[in-house]
Amino acid sequence: MLARWLKLTVSYDGRAYAGWQIQPDKPTVQGTFEATWQKLTQEPVHVTAAGRTDAGVHALGQVVSVSTQTRLTNDDLRRGLNALLPDDIAVVAVEDAPERFHATYNAVGKRYRYQIHNARSPSVFDRHYAWHYPNPLDAAAMHTAGQALVGRHDFSSFESAGSERPDSIRTINELTVARGFQVDESAAADSKLAVSERLPHFGTSNRVTIEVAGDGFLYNMVRTIVGTLVEVGRGTRDVNWPAEVLAAQDRRAAGQTAPPHGLFLVSVDY
Amino acid sequence: MLARWLKLTVSYDGRAYAGWQIQPDKPTVQGTFEATWQKLTQEPVHVTAAGRTDAGVHALGQVVSVSTQTRLTNDDLRRGLNALLPDDIAVVAVEDAPERFHATYNAVGKRYRYQIHNARSPSVFDRHYAWHYPNPLDAAAMHTAGQALVGRHDFSSFESAGSERPDSIRTINELTVARGFQVDESAAADSKLAVSERLPHFGTSNRVTIEVAGDGFLYNMVRTIVGTLVEVGRGTRDVNWPAEVLAAQDRRAAGQTAPPHGLFLVSVDY
Repeated sequence: MLARWLKLTVSYDGRAYAGWQIQPDKPTVQGTFEATWQKLTQEPVHVTAAGRTDAGVHALGQVVSVSTQTRLTNDDLRRGLNALLPDDIAVVAVEDAPERFHATYNAVGKRYRYQIHNARSPSVFDRHYAWHYPNPLDAAAMHTAGQALVGRHDFSSFESAGSERPDSIRTINELTVARGFQVDESAAADSKLAVSERLPHFGTSNRVTIEVAGDGFLYNMVRTIVGTLVEVGRGTRDVNWPAEVLAAQDRRAAGQTAPPHGLFLVSVDY
Repeated sequence: MLARWLKLTVSYDGRAYAGWQIQPDKPTVQGTFEATWQKLTQEPVHVTAAGRTDAGVHALGQVVSVSTQTRLTNDDLRRGLNALLPDDIAVVAVEDAPERFHATYNAVGKRYRYQIHNARSPSVFDRHYAWHYPNPLDAAAMHTAGQALVGRHDFSSFESAGSERPDSIRTINELTVARGFQVDESAAADSKLAVSERLPHFGTSNRVTIEVAGDGFLYNMVRTIVGTLVEVGRGTRDVNWPAEVLAAQDRRAAGQTAPPHGLFLVSVDY
C-alpha cells in the first residue's frame, strides 16, 4: 500500500511531560504519541511536530505530520487515538496533507499565548496553566512596550543558550497584552469564537494574557519576552526598556525566562 | 479574647475530594480546611459552608463562616492559609462578618455554573471541568426550554433521593444556556469582568455553559436540570418537556443526573 501524508492537530497538557521531543527514560508527548499510534495501527511510525515544546509547555493546536500506510480512515484514526491516548493528550483533527508534508519545515507562522494569574491569592483552576504573579501589573504598559518587538529583528537578546538555530532573525507579526478581555482579530472575525466568563470576587479581571504571532521563535523566546515585559508591567523598568533590550543583542540584557506552565502553542499556519 | 466572626471566600478544585462535608477516612474540603486552620492558628475550629458541594464538584466562590479567637489579621489568615493549604484549595478573601454570621442560614441566593464540552474530541484542558458530550447540542433550544423552570416551583422532579430537606419549593431567578459567549448581567454591569478567549480549530465554540441562580437548591437539582435540558438539546425531547417534568413532581420524570465534574458553585449572596 502506498504511503499517504496526514496533518494532525493535537492538544496536550504539558504538565506530565518532559516536552514534545522523544528522550530516553522520560515521558514525552512524541514518545507517548508514537507508542499509541503503533498500538492502534501495528505500524511503527515517526511523527514530526511544528514546534518542539519544552517541558511543561502546553498545546492547544500543535500540528503533527506523519507518513502512514494504515488503512484506517482519518476519522477512525482520530477516534482510535483518542480512545488509547492518556487523557492529557487529544487529537482534535486528522486531515489529508500534500505529499511530503512536513509540520516543521512547511510552517509559515506560529501563535503562542502566555497566561499570568495576577492576583494576591493563587488560583486553583489556573495553577497549572498560568504564572501566578501576585504584584500588580500594568497590562497597558506591557502592551505598549511590547510593540517595539513587532517586526523583523535580531532577537538574540531573547534567545536562551543551547539552541542550534543558525541565525536569530525572526519576524513578530503581532504582540498583544490584555487584561481580562483578550482581543483577537481572527476571533473578532467570527464572533461565535468569543467566550466570556464571569469572574466573581475580583474587582477587576486577574488574568493577563500575552499573545504573540510570528514566522518562527527562538529557544525560550516567548518566555523571555514575557519575563521582560513583566519588568515593565510591575514598574521596575519603563516602557522603552524592551526596545533597548532588543538593540543590545545580548541575552543578559533581558528579563528572566517566565515559567513554562503559562505557555500554550495556540496554532500553526501553513 | 473574645470571639469574632469571619466570612471567607474559598475556591477549590473538587476532583480530589469526597465533597465539602467532613467524613471519616475520606479526603474532604472541610476536613482539609479545618486541619490547616488548626495548624496555622493552633486553634481547633469548626467551619460552615454555604453549600455542601458533592464529591467532584468545584467552587469558585464558596462562602465559609467561622468564629475564631485568633490574633492573626484577616490578611495574615488569608496568606497563612494559602501557604499551608494544598494547591487545589485557595482562600480568595477573608472579611469581618456580623456577630453569629452563618454561611448556610444567612445565604439568600446561590449561583451555579455547569460546563459542557460539546465537541467530537475530548478536551485536555476541560477534562476535569466540563462534561464531554460529543453529540451536537442545540443550546438555544436548551435555553428556551429552561425558562419554564424560572420562578417559584416545587422542584421534586429535580431532587435526588437521600435529602433531608423538609420541602421542595425553591425559586430560580435566572437560568441561561449559552454556547461560547456566556451572557451574565452582573458581568455586563462591570465590563472589566469579561474574559474572552480564542478557541482555535473549531468552526464554532465547543463550550456550552448553563448558569442557574436561585434562593436555594435541592440535592442534585442543578445536575438534574442539566441532564434534563441536554435531552432537549440533543433533540430527543422537545422544548416543552422540562415544563412537563416540573409538573410531574416525580424524579423519574426527569433526565439523568449530569456528572459532578462540570459543576461549579460560583457565588453566594447574603
